Amino acid sequence: MSPITLKSYEDRIATHPSPLARRLLKIMTDKKTNLCVSLDVDTKDELLRLADTLGAYVCVFKTHVDTIENYTYESVIVPLVELSKRHNFLIFEDRKFADIGSTVKSQYTSGIFKIVQWAHITNAHALPGPGIIDGLYSGTKDINEERGLLLLAEMSSAGSLATGDYTDKTVDLARRNRAFTFGFIAQNRLGADDEDFIIMTPGVGLDDKGDGLGQQYRTVDDAVSGGSDIIIVGRGIFAKGRDPVTESKRYREAGWKAYTARVK
Amino acid sequence: MSPITLKSYEDRIATHPSPLARRLLKIMTDKKTNLCVSLDVDTKDELLRLADTLGAYVCVFKTHVDTIENYTYESVIVPLVELSKRHNFLIFEDRKFADIGSTVKSQYTSGIFKIVQWAHITNAHALPGPGIIDGLYSGTKDINEERGLLLLAEMSSAGSLATGDYTDKTVDLARRNRAFTFGFIAQNRLGADDEDFIIMTPGVGLDDKGDGLGQQYRTVDDAVSGGSDIIIVGRGIFAKGRDPVTESKRYREAGWKAYTARVK
Repeated sequence: MSPITLKSYEDRIATHPSPLARRLLKIMTDKKTNLCVSLDVDTKDELLRLADTLGAYVCVFKTHVDTIENYTYESVIVPLVELSKRHNFLIFEDRKFADIGSTVKSQYTSGIFKIVQWAHITNAHALPGPGIIDGLYSGTKDINEERGLLLLAEMSSAGSLATGDYTDKTVDLARRNRAFTFGFIAQNRLGADDEDFIIMTPGVGLDDKGDGLGQQYRTVDDAVSGGSDIIIVGRGIFAKGRDPVTESKRYREAGWKAYTARVK
Repeated sequence: MSPITLKSYEDRIATHPSPLARRLLKIMTDKKTNLCVSLDVDTKDELLRLADTLGAYVCVFKTHVDTIENYTYESVIVPLVELSKRHNFLIFEDRKFADIGSTVKSQYTSGIFKIVQWAHITNAHALPGPGIIDGLYSGTKDINEERGLLLLAEMSSAGSLATGDYTDKTVDLARRNRAFTFGFIAQNRLGADDEDFIIMTPGVGLDDKGDGLGQQYRTVDDAVSGGSDIIIVGRGIFAKGRDPVTESKRYREAGWKAYTARVK
């Protein structure tokens, strides 16, 4: 077990090399939650209603803005940022950037999304090589607030090629800019014993096994005891017949209990 | 040299397993061009003006719709589709899908882009495993026109992890659905001798070496003699001081000359 996983979120605030990670660990400590809810909904009304209703239970909301019907910056982003301040959560646009440096820089900063303006966190595949990190980082230079990048080191889908040597090379690339690349999307703790990377884990569900399109689920205890710092839950909370408030409370409790058991 | 690279585009029409590839090979034969121009511009007026001005010289235009300022479906997509009919080119949205099946299906079909409605071609990383192909393919079921997917088997950026075993596994995954996955983004011919995959090659430039964010350039002759079927050119045509019409004609001629030398 890596020594990092035995330290409390609070103790890690003082030493983490990323300003964004320090802010995130503080929110987790203050709100007693390691739950990231994935807002997998199609309409802006639903997105904003859920961000308001569930905001108290999460440290991070994960979004896919490119799937929202009738998206506009004014009607989606402006109120979402307002809610993030009111409920003290961070916004993670799950963009999975995967292009060469000059292209991801444009995709991060321009067009109708202007992701860097509002998403505290985004993520990228290391596949294109170091230029993707440099390109994204160069996009943050005019932003006066913490910004952080997660690299996808492992995926939760069946037959993923992000394993073994690929995962190792991704960890190496994360070391290129530790003030910006603060962690991984992964299923397990990664990095050397003295390297504090925040591990965010998707594919966590208490009641499901899979979705017929390759997604596979693990329990909260499995993920957190394996070294995950933040559990990402989507369909566990929003699937048909589930009450999002009840389920968010349940996942938050399960996540926090597994974390306190790990660090005690 | 793979026997596929010695066959003419016209001869490959009769045998290709993908309806989209057959349509594309027909366009290339009729218009005598293997040039794909990457419309790397920020405004919709520029995008549409170039699609009209350069449409005669290309078989495919490659787009990144998420970088267009003031994008709307009505003001960008509707006229672009109209131009694609007038000039007989295909549209390739270079989305580089890279998420699990259920998510890429939403990203392909919904939101404000609705990519599957208008992009004849899109592309994806094989990284998440077979679910990404199944998810995208399931998004095409209500579309009454050819649609095709390219997998990213190799990238042109420095330090890319898409090499060796990763490339081999990507080729294996492409075999899962040959009517939909019709080829690769790659630097070299891929697949067995009797497998006709269309190879589209980025990072082609006659006058540049790199961009400072990891992009590396090869010449037209290098790419086509290495097995590329379609050269993708962006900054070679649009960099400052270059006339896009002059450069498009130049790249089209160089590409066609290299192709006729290969198959003669």
